[in-house]
Parts: sequence; structure tokens; C-alpha cells
Amino acid sequence: MSKTRVGIINVTGYVGIELARLLCRHPGVDLISVTGRSAAGQKLGKVFPHLAGIALTIETRLGEVDLAFSAMPHGESAAEVVPLLERGLKVVDMSGDFRLKDAVEWQSWYGHVHPMPDLIKKAVYGIPELHRREIKETQLVANPGCYSTGAILALAPAAAAGIIEPDIIVDSKSGVSGAGRTLKLTSHFCEVDEDVCAYAVEGHRLMPEIVQEVNLVSQGSAAKITFMPHLIPMNRGILSACYATLKMDKVVGNNPKEYLKRVYRDFYTDEPFIRIVDDPPHTKQVQGSNFCHIYTTVDSRTGKLIVLSVIDNLVKGAAGQGVQNMNLMLGLPEAMGLDAPAMFP
Amino acid sequence: MSKTRVGIINVTGYVGIELARLLCRHPGVDLISVTGRSAAGQKLGKVFPHLAGIALTIETRLGEVDLAFSAMPHGESAAEVVPLLERGLKVVDMSGDFRLKDAVEWQSWYGHVHPMPDLIKKAVYGIPELHRREIKETQLVANPGCYSTGAILALAPAAAAGIIEPDIIVDSKSGVSGAGRTLKLTSHFCEVDEDVCAYAVEGHRLMPEIVQEVNLVSQGSAAKITFMPHLIPMNRGILSACYATLKMDKVVGNNPKEYLKRVYRDFYTDEPFIRIVDDPPHTKQVQGSNFCHIYTTVDSRTGKLIVLSVIDNLVKGAAGQGVQNMNLMLGLPEAMGLDAPAMFP
Amino acid sequence: MSKTRVGIINVTGYVGIELARLLCRHPGVDLISVTGRSAAGQKLGKVFPHLAGIALTIETRLGEVDLAFSAMPHGESAAEVVPLLERGLKVVDMSGDFRLKDAVEWQSWYGHVHPMPDLIKKAVYGIPELHRREIKETQLVANPGCYSTGAILALAPAAAAGIIEPDIIVDSKSGVSGAGRTLKLTSHFCEVDEDVCAYAVEGHRLMPEIVQEVNLVSQGSAAKITFMPHLIPMNRGILSACYATLKMDKVVGNNPKEYLKRVYRDFYTDEPFIRIVDDPPHTKQVQGSNFCHIYTTVDSRTGKLIVLSVIDNLVKGAAGQGVQNMNLMLGLPEAMGLDAPAMFP
Amino acid sequence: MSKTRVGIINVTGYVGIELARLLCRHPGVDLISVTGRSAAGQKLGKVFPHLAGIALTIETRLGEVDLAFSAMPHGESAAEVVPLLERGLKVVDMSGDFRLKDAVEWQSWYGHVHPMPDLIKKAVYGIPELHRREIKETQLVANPGCYSTGAILALAPAAAAGIIEPDIIVDSKSGVSGAGRTLKLTSHFCEVDEDVCAYAVEGHRLMPEIVQEVNLVSQGSAAKITFMPHLIPMNRGILSACYATLKMDKVVGNNPKEYLKRVYRDFYTDEPFIRIVDDPPHTKQVQGSNFCHIYTTVDSRTGKLIVLSVIDNLVKGAAGQGVQNMNLMLGLPEAMGLDAPAMFP
Repeated sequence: MSKTRVGIINVTGYVGIELARLLCRHPGVDLISVTGRSAAGQKLGKVFPHLAGIALTIETRLGEVDLAFSAMPHGESAAEVVPLLERGLKVVDMSGDFRLKDAVEWQSWYGHVHPMPDLIKKAVYGIPELHRREIKETQLVANPGCYSTGAILALAPAAAAGIIEPDIIVDSKSGVSGAGRTLKLTSHFCEVDEDVCAYAVEGHRLMPEIVQEVNLVSQGSAAKITFMPHLIPMNRGILSACYATLKMDKVVGNNPKEYLKRVYRDFYTDEPFIRIVDDPPHTKQVQGSNFCHIYTTVDSRTGKLIVLSVIDNLVKGAAGQGVQNMNLMLGLPEAMGLDAPAMFP
Repeated sequence: MSKTRVGIINVTGYVGIELARLLCRHPGVDLISVTGRSAAGQKLGKVFPHLAGIALTIETRLGEVDLAFSAMPHGESAAEVVPLLERGLKVVDMSGDFRLKDAVEWQSWYGHVHPMPDLIKKAVYGIPELHRREIKETQLVANPGCYSTGAILALAPAAAAGIIEPDIIVDSKSGVSGAGRTLKLTSHFCEVDEDVCAYAVEGHRLMPEIVQEVNLVSQGSAAKITFMPHLIPMNRGILSACYATLKMDKVVGNNPKEYLKRVYRDFYTDEPFIRIVDDPPHTKQVQGSNFCHIYTTVDSRTGKLIVLSVIDNLVKGAAGQGVQNMNLMLGLPEAMGLDAPAMFP
Repeated sequence: MSKTRVGIINVTGYVGIELARLLCRHPGVDLISVTGRSAAGQKLGKVFPHLAGIALTIETRLGEVDLAFSAMPHGESAAEVVPLLERGLKVVDMSGDFRLKDAVEWQSWYGHVHPMPDLIKKAVYGIPELHRREIKETQLVANPGCYSTGAILALAPAAAAGIIEPDIIVDSKSGVSGAGRTLKLTSHFCEVDEDVCAYAVEGHRLMPEIVQEVNLVSQGSAAKITFMPHLIPMNRGILSACYATLKMDKVVGNNPKEYLKRVYRDFYTDEPFIRIVDDPPHTKQVQGSNFCHIYTTVDSRTGKLIVLSVIDNLVKGAAGQGVQNMNLMLGLPEAMGLDAPAMFP
Repeated sequence: MSKTRVGIINVTGYVGIELARLLCRHPGVDLISVTGRSAAGQKLGKVFPHLAGIALTIETRLGEVDLAFSAMPHGESAAEVVPLLERGLKVVDMSGDFRLKDAVEWQSWYGHVHPMPDLIKKAVYGIPELHRREIKETQLVANPGCYSTGAILALAPAAAAGIIEPDIIVDSKSGVSGAGRTLKLTSHFCEVDEDVCAYAVEGHRLMPEIVQEVNLVSQGSAAKITFMPHLIPMNRGILSACYATLKMDKVVGNNPKEYLKRVYRDFYTDEPFIRIVDDPPHTKQVQGSNFCHIYTTVDSRTGKLIVLSVIDNLVKGAAGQGVQNMNLMLGLPEAMGLDAPAMFP
């Protein structure tokens, strides 16, 4: 039986090559085409020697595939995706172009009118833990942002259980690969190394994704989320620390910490990539893998719920989740090709 | 005129050698004696080649000095300090032994009965920006913790102005030198590098210092502070992100961000080591220096005050602040020996 | 058909957990037992959360396996290995105990009499590229050292071709994981980060392995190798730069650089894990993978051959090569379970 | 008495800001003017918050100074320097424009005809340890390259003593700041972090400086130097490992290691910034300081001399040496403003 043919648009960024890394050994699909403007015409393994085992040349136009990943930048991806959808292909869009359900909100964060507002309804926000059913049936998945994935997975169970007040702080720390491969001073080695800073302090465009999904899962209550991203001198990984006031009257039993952990374990029962862990998690424990480790506790002095989540921003925060979505769209086992444990140290 | 003779007890940790680095070129004092158990009898420059310019041998007992820094571990410093005080020396204690004014609270965090509860009253908590007058007259300064310094300096103006609700989140990110030179798995290179984690999630012993000082400055209202420290793969630096709900009715004028910045600039007028900055600060911008850079803003969507502060944990967070306190105790210019700009990159 | 059962002695070091990472998904074997002194009785996934997918408890004694990896320290491994060999098991010994063919030389480097000199003859030095045939038939493989692997693979083709003078410089740069998980000041984060140093300048115990194998392949001429290891602030990877005087009269044709590359390509024809590359290699291009990338050139001003090789010290330099040897010993495809591309960035 | 007025052309690179850091506290000069194309018109402390203590605005043209540092790029500096020299200013040129005495050789490395061949004779190569007398009397110092400084200081004593054969290997490892602040993929954080590579393998333009100076000091014998630079994931520091065959008949006494150390100690007697150390040096031991630590040994198995030197590439390898040269040119104490110990860790 022939495998599904898949391709990657714009393979030359960090998300693109991570997709290639995961897809080249995926037993259920054949990676047959990759595109990239800057390096078109060159062998993939010449531009990226770690991918020398993949015998593909970087093309300008995608070949005949059944499913495509678009790793184009925000604002440019929609235009690439539409012709593919019209040709009947399934698409996993890695950009932010179809994540927000509100085109006006989209415009306020991305700076121009949404190019395809009709398609917004068609797209499914690709967090399998929340939207598995819709993902299986859609032609277009909007793959979530890296920060959004970590924060939404950390907050969803508490929000769904209605046990927290709407004021939420999400303080996230990310490795530098999230900023991409495009040259900029804020990704220049000597500026980042031995440094930590907060950025986008007036608002980050992944914040509205978090609000959208937390509100969806909490059925009515409107979350007020303060989101603060930080840049950490490392390649991969996001740690999100989430703080909210626990509604003590909603806590069942007299051990809030245990109750909280139970809420989280129940919410994520049988999830292949979520682990509710007993010790504060480290980003390195999920490095290179599609896992999200979540730790919950309560600050008994202040009554604050504290949830810590860690992901690899390029895997569960991007390419890995994209492959997970692809598996669902193609009817393959959800964890296929994603079973590698993290690389430690 | 002869200079004041100073010495360092336990020079062999990171705080000890940072004190040596700063004191060896200080124009107002003579560093004449350093002690250390593990390396006693060896030349300082043999054990620490970067200090080869200091012609001292590590001793077991402190020589005849007028002022001593104790860089002993928590719980062991008090016993070293008492005989010195009895001999009439001035002492800057770098440990946590005399920072908390409440001996019962101290016991709950440090795990045993306080050895010298009477001395607690005598000691002055050494943040010059808050306690300059008392520092000038005391014989014993309790030099603040690194996290505490960054958080207190970030919160004091808002707390003093009464413009925030008591619920406060302090999310701090620290380089590894704060964990000291003692070997442990959590400071082992391959465990820390390319990783970020939260730790002490059930409560960190520097938290009560923050509460004590914020309460003191806020004159009555009792802060409820959730403090969460994180470990970052870098040597030096602490970034603290502080979140609290702004009391909008206390904001003067219709521009909360500008008002907030004014409150902070006014509070720290003429402070030699505090800079209220216009862009989100980077720890590297204060690397090796005694400066604290503070940035303030308001999340207009949620009404949250956000304050970011950066310090070098070994300088303003330890040795540099110790020297600043020494200068005050000795009647020297406060910034003497501390005028070096940060080392960047 | 039942799979071969394998086990790991001393799983708690970096080589041990890397073996577990590779073996847990290996399609040809079942990892059924792991031992470790310090953490015996605990679940593997509790001690190492990145391995939570492996449902094993760390034991004090190895279970009933057909093949065992011993990741015991040098000097302690031999005693573990002998009883296993007597029971008929196949063994891949990751330590240095059986690598040197000369027991007297071994003693001079390891500081005590070799415990099992008779076994030395039985053991095969496990570089498949040089000893594939013997590995397939042996019961005991002495898995090479990390530095040795990189240097031997870089030098073997030139040595075999007889085109270099015997004086050879090997200047190697290694990540810190090569120093293991045992706590020591030289692996303490703040001592290693932002630093580079040479060490073992009076002689490193992996040097005689390099000499032994280079002499073996060069058939007679006795190499004089100066080996200098350096510690680099990163987790994984070894870059070895090798310098030797080219025998110009042995160069065929008038393009020494091209001739050299041809010698290397011919020597490693069809090798699954060796790539002769066209640009200077980066350790990150093989991170997490079993590949060795080799670059050759000639300094036309000085007539020096220059060969650069990169490996991941924990994979091709340890666990990955161990699995490669296991595959050969068990008659499995040599690259089975080792096909993952490197993780980049 | 008025101080000498100094200025920095092109302050916005890493060498430029390092000069500013050192000069702003230098007790013998006044830093009164800094220029920079990209940031002209902005306050220095706005562009570089760590320099907020310097009250200067970045200008397009240098103000009225007595001595200027040109931190312009190679090939562009000469044109800036000539008008200054004509106005009678003293100049320390940080670029490579006047370092090579041979204009033809310069052209072969820098790719175009030398713009001011006559000035080459006038310029003094600014290594004070070799050319102190000429530096004191010149109007134009060509400040050495970073790699060149480390290698020349490591090789000069052995070359002067005539105890090594002409074939020399210099294997250097540098932090990334040596590559400057200009954006390029090879300085992009995620490409450099957790990686080591060799580069410029076909020849680096700092190599001929090393050859020029080693030949000068060795009085006749023509060194054949193979120079191989490597990039290390850290900000600052260069470690150079130098290898050469020792002429055993030139060794006095029967302890080559001791004799070698004596040769080095004698050569650098009373040098303020050279330390011959007893243990292999670490770059971090000179971080931020103007020191060069040198370690010598002999590989008794192969008869090779091994010399290891460490410097901070931005201080002794650039700005610090520039200030040292300035001190000499102005008749100030040579170590003035350069007495800070290294920052560790």
C-alpha cells in the first residue's frame, strides 16, 4: 500500500527542518518535496548537513503531495495555503494566519486585514488534547504557537473545572530557536548568551490564542491573562509558570494540592503526550520530544494555584504537534513517528 | 592617613571571591586578610588565578582588621560574627542569619532555633535605598539575599505609594552562581545547561525577607507574595518580574504608565545605583556592576502593574551591596570602588 | 519470534541513560533490566523523567538477559563483566578495562594491575569501521573511548595509505558530558560555562587507544601522537583537529586536497555512519546521532594534512557505537535503531 | 593639569564599547567623543544601557581630541586614520590595515591594493611586550589582532631562544565576540550555541601577523605556521594551543619542562600583564582583564613543546591592549586604567 505523500513549504527555517527531521523517519508517510526560497536548487543535505540522509533537493514549488505543511512566516502563509486547499490537499499551517477565530482581533495583532477571513471558520486550532475530533475531520489545521501550546495545556484543566479566578499571570521562558533563523540583533549570540530579558512587554501576538482557548474551555468566564515572554540563553524549550487565585470553595476535600493534581490527571487521562509529574519539571526533560510535562501546586500562604508546564518549542510547540495533527487528519495512530524519548542531557 | 583594614571570612565561595575582586582595588580600604577552611595555607592567587594580583595567603583565622565580611553559609555565620562584634569590629554579614526580624519566622525557614536572637535587633537589613541612615550607624549589617534585593527594589516604590493590591507575584530568573560553589547535581553543568526549571516551589527562604521589607515600606498593608525562583543557564544575573493589580483610583492623571514611571523616578531620585530605564532591561546590562535597572509598565488589558528589575546577583545581589554598606558604615563615599560599568557582552 | 533481551549495568550515568534512550525504541531487542547502585529500587522514569516511557525499576542485580552493556567506571567494570561472560552472555563493555591489548601499558595509565589480563585477548576493540568481522564473532566488545573514536576515524585512512609522517598532533574539544555525571568542580556549571581549557596535559588515558589503533592500521610505522583534550561549554560533541606532515611523494596526481578526499572516501565506502563532507563540520550537525562527519584538507603553505572529525561523544563516542556493536554481535542490521538524524539546532 | 582628550571612531561594535568601558574610568584621559554611523545622534547610554554612566552622544564626526582609537572595519580604517594623523593626532588603529609590513602580502589577505602603503612603515605593531620602545615614540599604532596576540605571546620566548623547529601548529579556540556585532548566520545564537567548529580552514588573515612577528623575534629562521581557529559557544576568551618540535640539543640541563618555564619567565620578567602559570590556564581566569596567562610543558613521549595561552579577546586581544598602547604613547604608567582583576565566574 502506498504511503501518503507529504511536503514542507519553506523548509529552511527551524520549524521547517524540524518537520523534516520528524517526517523523514515517519513510518506512515513519505516526505517527497520541500521548498525554500533562499536555498532553492540546492540539496537539502548540503544546506543542512544533519539532514544528509534525506535525498531531496530544495524546490521553488511544492511537488505532488497529499498533505502539506506550510512553515511560511505569519501573513505570508495564507496565500500559499489557499491554492493547496483548492487542489484538495490537506494542510497543516504552522503560521499564525488561521489561529484566531476573530478576524478583527487578528488584524489588531498582525497589523493588516486578514487575507482570507472565510477560511478562518474552516480551520481547526490544532491542539489535539482539546480539539481532537475536529482535527480528524478538517482539511486545514492551524497549528498553535509555541507559547500558546505550553500555556493552554497548563491552564485548560483548571479553567474547565472552574476552580480559578479570571485573573491569570503566565510568565514564560523560551529558548532562542522560537525567534527563528532570520538574523536579528536579539538572536545574535553575544547579545543573548549569559542574558535573560522579558520582551513584547506591551503585548505578544500569541497571547490572544491563549485567551481564546482558555475561554473556550472555561465555558463562559472571560479570562484576563497577563502574558510575559522571556528569552533564555538556550536553544530549545519553553517553561510556562501560570499563577491564578484558587477558588477555595470549589476545591473538593481538604487537600487542595492533591485535588488539583487529580483534576489535571483526570483531564489528561490517556493523553499520549501529557505527563502530570510529581516534581517541578525541566525543559531538558522534554528536549527533542513531543511531550508536555505539567506540575501543579498551591501556594498555601497566598491561596494561589501554580502550574508549571514544559515543552520543546520546536516539537510539541511546533513541528511535533504538526505531525500529531497530521496523524489525526490521516487516520494514523496519533503517536506514530513521535515516540522518541527526550534527549538528555 | 592609614586606610581601614578589612577582611573576608570564607573567601573560597563565589561571594567571597567577588568581595576580594571588589575590595582589592577599593581606594578607601586595605584588604589584609582572607580565611577559608578548605584552602587554608594556600596562596589566594594559586587557588584563584584570576586573583593572582592579590598577595594574600588564605588563613584559618582572620587577621587584625577593623571591618569584616562574613561569607559563611547560613546558620554558621552567626557564630563567627559574635566574637568579632565583641572585639568591636564592624561586620557585614553576607548570610541570612540576621536578616529576618522575627526569630520564630527565621526558625521556620532555616530549620533550627536562632542562635543569637538578641543580635537580630541590632542588625540592620542592608538595602541602602531603604535603610541608609541606620546602616551608617550600625555595627552589624545583614546583607540582603540576591533575590530579595531585586524584588524589594522592584516593589518598594509601588508599595510605598499604596497603589497596588496586596496580592503580588514575583517570578525570578537567576544565573547559577547564586547556588554557590558547593558541588550539587543541580549545579552540574550538563544538568543546568540548555535547561530552565522552577525550584523551591513550596517556598524559598528569601521570600520572607521580601515580605518583611515590602510590608515595612507599605506602612500597614500586609503583602501576600507568591515568589517563584527559576534557574537559568548562565553565570550571573537575576531578572525579577513582579505582577500586582494596580489600584486605578490611586493613579493620578490619565496615563497610568507615565504616572507609574514618575512614582519610581521620584522614589529613587539621586540613588547612585538605581536606573529607571525606558526599555525592558537585560541582566547583561548590569553584569559585573552594582547597578539595578528597573522597568515599569501597566498591562492595559488586565490592569496589572508589571515591574522588571535586573541585578548581578553577585554584585548588587551580594558583594557589591556589601561594599556599598561598608562604605556607608565607614563614612566613605557610597559609590567608592563600585564605579565600574557593566561588562558587555 | 522473541527478541533478544538486553540489559544495562549502571544505568544512572550519562552513558547508561543514553543507552536506555537508544535501546528502548530499538526494534530488534527488548530492554528488560537496568541496574544502578545509587538509585536502586526507584522507577527509572522517576529518577530520569525523560525516560518515563520505559516501565523499568532500577535494580541492584541484572535480570535474565542475553546481552549486557556494562557502563561501570574504569577499573570496576571487569569484575562485573566476568561472571556474565561465564554465564554465556554477550557483553559490550563501555569502560576502558579491555581496550588496550597490552596489560603493562594498561597498568601505566589506569594505575593498578589489570584484573583479567587473559580476557584482554578475547575482547575486540569495538570500532566497526576497522574491526567489523571480529566484532561479529566475539563475545566481548571493548567499546572505544569517545576521544579515541573521533581521532581514530579521522586518522585511519591517512595512516593506512601511508601518506603521513609519524608525528601527529590531535587537538580535541569536547562537551562536558564526557566527564560524566559524578560531581566535580571541573564539571560545576559556573566553572565551565563561558570557559575553555586544556586538561590532562601530561597525558590522557585515551591516548594509548589512539596510538594502538593507528599503529595497527598503518602496518608497521610507529605513530608519535601528541593528544590534547579541551573542555568546551556545551553538553555534547567532540571536534578533533588532526595535524600531520603529508608525504608529498606519496600523493598521486597534482591536487593533494582532492587526492586526500579520495583516499578518505575510498576507505569509508559504504560505511553507514561516516560522511566525508565538503565543508568544515560542526559538532551540532551530528548531535544526538551516530554519525561521524570528516573533513580533510591540506595547508598548502606548510604541507600539513589537516583532518577534522565530529561526533556526538555520547552516541558514536559511546552508547550509539555500543548499539552498533550489539547489532553486529547479534546479526542484526548494523544501523538498526540508529537511524535518527541529528537534532539541530 | 588638563587630561589628554581621547575619542573612539565607530563605538558601536564590541571593540568600540569595550574601549568606552575601559576609557570612561581611566584616570589619565578624558573620553570626550565617540562616533558611529548607525546610531549617530543617539545617547551612548540609550543604545548601550550598560554605558549609561557616560554622558556622551554618538556623533558622526570625531570631536577635538588628542588621541583617537579607530575601531573601523578592516579596509575602511586607513581612510579614517590619515586625516587624523595629518592633523597631528596620535592614533591607535584597531583594524588590520597597518599591521602587516608587506603591502603585497596585505593585498593577498585583504583582497585589494593597500590604500596607504607609505604609512605602513610609520605604524608600529602594538604588542608592548615586543615593541615597547617603538610604541612610545610612534604616532600610529597598529593594534594587533586577537588571535595574533595570543599566539605571538605564546610563541615569542621559544622562538627567540631558538629552541623549536620551524614547523608550528597553532590551534586556537575563540569566543564569539571576536566575530563582531554584525549580523551573520555564523554568529546566530542557535547556530553557535552547543556547537564547536573550525573555520577559515584555508587560511585566516591573522595568520600572517603571527608569522611576521615570530620571524622577527626568531632572527632569521622562517617559521612555518599552521593556524586553525575554532569558534566556541561563549562570549569572550581565546585559548591558543601551540605545538612545535623541541630542539633537544638546545635545552640546557636535564629537565626540559623546567628549562622551558625558565625561558618563558626570563623573557617576560617584569611584564605587567603576562603571567607564567603553574596549571593549565582557563580563559575565564582572564575574563574582562588585560592579562595573558601562559602555560608551558613538553610531551615527553613525542618531544613536542606545548604552550597554552589565554587572553580575553576584547581586552588584551583588542581594547585593553589598545589602552596599554595609548598609555605608552602618552607617557602614562603602562598599566593605568587596566588594573581590574578578571571577573570570575
